[in-house]
Amino acid sequence: MKVTVFRKEHFNAAHRLHNPAWSDEKNLEVFGKCNNYNYHGHNYDLIVEVTGEVNPETGYVIDMKVLSDLIREHVTDKFDHKNLNLDTEEFKEVIPSAENIAIVIHQLLRKHIDPLQELHITLYETERNFVRYPAR
Amino acid sequence: MKVTVFRKEHFNAAHRLHNPAWSDEKNLEVFGKCNNYNYHGHNYDLIVEVTGEVNPETGYVIDMKVLSDLIREHVTDKFDHKNLNLDTEEFKEVIPSAENIAIVIHQLLRKHIDPLQELHITLYETERNFVRYPAR
Amino acid sequence: MKVTVFRKEHFNAAHRLHNPAWSDEKNLEVFGKCNNYNYHGHNYDLIVEVTGEVNPETGYVIDMKVLSDLIREHVTDKFDHKNLNLDTEEFKEVIPSAENIAIVIHQLLRKHIDPLQELHITLYETERNFVRYPAR
Amino acid sequence: MKVTVFRKEHFNAAHRLHNPAWSDEKNLEVFGKCNNYNYHGHNYDLIVEVTGEVNPETGYVIDMKVLSDLIREHVTDKFDHKNLNLDTEEFKEVIPSAENIAIVIHQLLRKHIDPLQELHITLYETERNFVRYPAR
Amino acid sequence: MKVTVFRKEHFNAAHRLHNPAWSDEKNLEVFGKCNNYNYHGHNYDLIVEVTGEVNPETGYVIDMKVLSDLIREHVTDKFDHKNLNLDTEEFKEVIPSAENIAIVIHQLLRKHIDPLQELHITLYETERNFVRYPAR
Amino acid sequence: MKVTVFRKEHFNAAHRLHNPAWSDEKNLEVFGKCNNYNYHGHNYDLIVEVTGEVNPETGYVIDMKVLSDLIREHVTDKFDHKNLNLDTEEFKEVIPSAENIAIVIHQLLRKHIDPLQELHITLYETERNFVRYPAR
Repeated sequence: MKVTVFRKEHFNAAHRLHNPAWSDEKNLEVFGKCNNYNYHGHNYDLIVEVTGEVNPETGYVIDMKVLSDLIREHVTDKFDHKNLNLDTEEFKEVIPSAENIAIVIHQLLRKHIDPLQELHITLYETERNFVRYPAR
Repeated sequence: MKVTVFRKEHFNAAHRLHNPAWSDEKNLEVFGKCNNYNYHGHNYDLIVEVTGEVNPETGYVIDMKVLSDLIREHVTDKFDHKNLNLDTEEFKEVIPSAENIAIVIHQLLRKHIDPLQELHITLYETERNFVRYPAR
Repeated sequence: MKVTVFRKEHFNAAHRLHNPAWSDEKNLEVFGKCNNYNYHGHNYDLIVEVTGEVNPETGYVIDMKVLSDLIREHVTDKFDHKNLNLDTEEFKEVIPSAENIAIVIHQLLRKHIDPLQELHITLYETERNFVRYPAR
Repeated sequence: MKVTVFRKEHFNAAHRLHNPAWSDEKNLEVFGKCNNYNYHGHNYDLIVEVTGEVNPETGYVIDMKVLSDLIREHVTDKFDHKNLNLDTEEFKEVIPSAENIAIVIHQLLRKHIDPLQELHITLYETERNFVRYPAR
Repeated sequence: MKVTVFRKEHFNAAHRLHNPAWSDEKNLEVFGKCNNYNYHGHNYDLIVEVTGEVNPETGYVIDMKVLSDLIREHVTDKFDHKNLNLDTEEFKEVIPSAENIAIVIHQLLRKHIDPLQELHITLYETERNFVRYPAR
Repeated sequence: MKVTVFRKEHFNAAHRLHNPAWSDEKNLEVFGKCNNYNYHGHNYDLIVEVTGEVNPETGYVIDMKVLSDLIREHVTDKFDHKNLNLDTEEFKEVIPSAENIAIVIHQLLRKHIDPLQELHITLYETERNFVRYPAR
């Protein structure tokens, strides 16, 4: 009797897509306006999914207050109102594409969630562009 | 050639999270403000998913009008503008957490959907807290 | 050069529409399912608007953090996860219709906002039913 | 390390549900107001999902600009501001139910997406009625 | 103590923008793809606003159930799942632009609302194109 | 018979709130995390409102395609995927608060809209923080 629970949070950050192994021309050609030298930014909406058995004593898979606090401590306090490229350890050598941000958030949270429970991350970069990791 | 169809409905209800096997102190500690003695409430958004083959004569998996009527008859007429703890049989002895409400709605609808079709329930307690049953 | 700034917050509460001066029959006739004896509930979305001159030193009409804290202290801490009829002073003798809740919220906040600034309240009882006070 | 990326687009179209093998009476009985002789219409929201490995050089599963252009060229330029029954080849002999439109869009895009990547289509006919193909 | 109450409804319809006094060339030039010969369509979201005094006995400006029934009877039953140009009297000689639809809906409802109350109509043709009548 | 028409657009940008006349300490105290040295960012949603008479030949207040093109040319091409503080002339000496961005957008568009028509700007910095200029 497994249920998936979803918690939605958000953070606002600046970023720039740039591969330092490439020339400026190639970066501009591949990343277009996302390569803007002085950064641009987004309101990121983040949905964290935890899948597991329902605890019969509480009716909960995981206490949403606990999940929300974990997300704040390990993710949004790190990334909110930051420049992902300059202000975070995680994206010093990783391109902060939506795909990579979702993978990094999964790594940051995985160790804090019960190993018997599955964890999935959905990240909205805009209303029209979003990603999910791991893919089902 | 299986397609999943989704129908969104909603209902407004009062509820309280409380485990009668526990002391008041433990209930407050575990459920926090969701344990408020005089209840609180939500606008629940409900998404019912039916997965099956497309009928070549209609282009439908299931007639959305039929699905909508089933949800109204078996779910929302029961729960809408009610106190889940006091006014419903289903939550007399079951804690009305979002997880348990989704499981109960699945039980209420399962017998009315073609056994060859899969049924999934997503329930939004708020925009930021929601659950899905069964987990994929 | 007046600008209006809007801050959206929310709270979840139970309520019941009931006029004690009327018979049960008349209450049921007028308020329908909103008169349910054991209450029902809503996720209330609240938008607070403040209109005034922009401070040239900050670019702000009012600091959104300050406005958000005022709303939390004077409104949502009072009403969130409560039964409006039973748990609040404000609705002991006032019917907690959306209209009246908006008027009460305006009264609670008015004294904390600069008298040179205008204050308007929009309250969503559901996505499809909402009210604004004062009317323009 | 597979990630799913989602791109949301939209188009506005007229359509009519009608099975030419049936009498007018049976069509009206089965399709109800969706059978209206002179058509009706919708704002269709379309979400295209591509699942695959992340390219380590770009951090992308697929460039969202490329995906958006593919959707425009092969789907929305065909269907936007059109009458699906009269103005398109695809629905000359296929009933334009949401289920069938999703299957057709999958066929139109499948050949333009890397065969190692999975493709799923979600189509919103209204906010409350939507479909996904293939079902998971 | 005037409050504005808002009720959101919707309908789905086909339409075509075409001025019969003009040549086909001029129609195409002015209306572009909205001039498509075989019509296209929209999910129209409609918000009806009524502004007036709060009735102290009910806490209501107007009973939302009554308002919703008025909108159904006089507006959405007429326009839902219809071709506005062909199936309605109102747009036989009026171009069904969003502006004109809002004006027509105002005319249809005005006589059924208390003359002491103000009435405003907001009509969403898409999420990104909408109109309000009368302008404030 | 004045109608207001609304067109919604969006852009993504980085910014930083900082008053160069103040010390770093005062900037941090007043602007908090919005003062982050390396910028942060937002998905800005922009709603442009034009109020005027309906042209009886077209049923339009203003052609939405024309309005959309004006916004793209004069606003979003300037600001999208940019750092407002570093990449734009407009915010070289103006703090890019939501209030000031709305005022600047009004100035950029005002000269391109018919002087007989009114122009209002609503700018969403996030879903929960937004501003409107001029105030009504």
